[in-house]
Amino acid sequence: MELLRQRILQEGKVLDGDILKVDSFINHQIDPILANEIGREFCKRFKDLHIDKILTLETSGIAFALFTAYDLNVPLIFAKKQTSKNMAPDVYSSIVYSYTKETEYTISVSRQYISQDENILIIDDFLANGQAVLGLLDIIKKAGATAKGVGIVIEKGFQPGGKMLRNQGIRLESLVVIESFNDKKIIFREDKK
Amino acid sequence: MELLRQRILQEGKVLDGDILKVDSFINHQIDPILANEIGREFCKRFKDLHIDKILTLETSGIAFALFTAYDLNVPLIFAKKQTSKNMAPDVYSSIVYSYTKETEYTISVSRQYISQDENILIIDDFLANGQAVLGLLDIIKKAGATAKGVGIVIEKGFQPGGKMLRNQGIRLESLVVIESFNDKKIIFREDKK
Repeated sequence: MELLRQRILQEGKVLDGDILKVDSFINHQIDPILANEIGREFCKRFKDLHIDKILTLETSGIAFALFTAYDLNVPLIFAKKQTSKNMAPDVYSSIVYSYTKETEYTISVSRQYISQDENILIIDDFLANGQAVLGLLDIIKKAGATAKGVGIVIEKGFQPGGKMLRNQGIRLESLVVIESFNDKKIIFREDKK
Repeated sequence: MELLRQRILQEGKVLDGDILKVDSFINHQIDPILANEIGREFCKRFKDLHIDKILTLETSGIAFALFTAYDLNVPLIFAKKQTSKNMAPDVYSSIVYSYTKETEYTISVSRQYISQDENILIIDDFLANGQAVLGLLDIIKKAGATAKGVGIVIEKGFQPGGKMLRNQGIRLESLVVIESFNDKKIIFREDKK
């Protein structure tokens, strides 16, 4: 997605530890015009799949998931993060390991909002190790629903999440894939010759 | 806002402790069509105020703040919640007391994203004791910016937040105000005779 790539080149900052800081337009301050374009792009890529619901994880995927849900005219659910392991009986939950924070957390979705006949599309802002997406897929499986695809705004192609999901046969659409941060310069996968 | 009131009457559930559960369309599952209508309504009510930015608090205000930001064509910032008291030097922060959870948490916004010449509109999903809004107002004040108004989706009119903010001269627009939960029946303020 060229608009997004340009914006990342203009405003993204590469920090130590292969961290891409895009909090001026993606995950602290949000540009709603760009977020809307991102939602349209996901809608275009997934609209043939008869999606019933969008599933994301709080917090920073919500904006993109919301515009996608609006364009596909389906509800959005955001899984909630908890540090507590006391799970209410009326939720589907999964444990996610965060490599960034080196800690586990539990994500959960009320059983009311995913049913076994539903086609679910996962949307999130970043894909790196893929642990959050695995947790969301686990919840969809527990509900007996079908995961039809995964839409990611920015995939870090040099981390294993994308390959792992594609190897599982999951339809993964990343709007941009970063191949590497070479001396803190952002190289996109499509730019490779 | 009649559409919202009808939806609350249809799907809202009153739980013990004056809790209104609206997680089928507001704060777990979100109806993006309704969220868009809510954004339009806030836009209509605040569009004359030359708003430069929308400020909300993660998580459940983001959807409504995003559509408002889209309609007003301005960026959205969401303040981040932390339980840690270690604040980075490059943020404005404030401590918020949650009556529901009986605990304090810190909210923060990067200094980069609020400047002293800006007009800020706060949007949030619920107003009860008003502590979260006070925290956001404190951040705006620390940045030297101007809080032009507060837009709330559901105000619990029997709790003190709304009165406190109005008494401070803040322009507060609540799309629905709940007067009471009388025997778990939802009574809206406008319904009083």
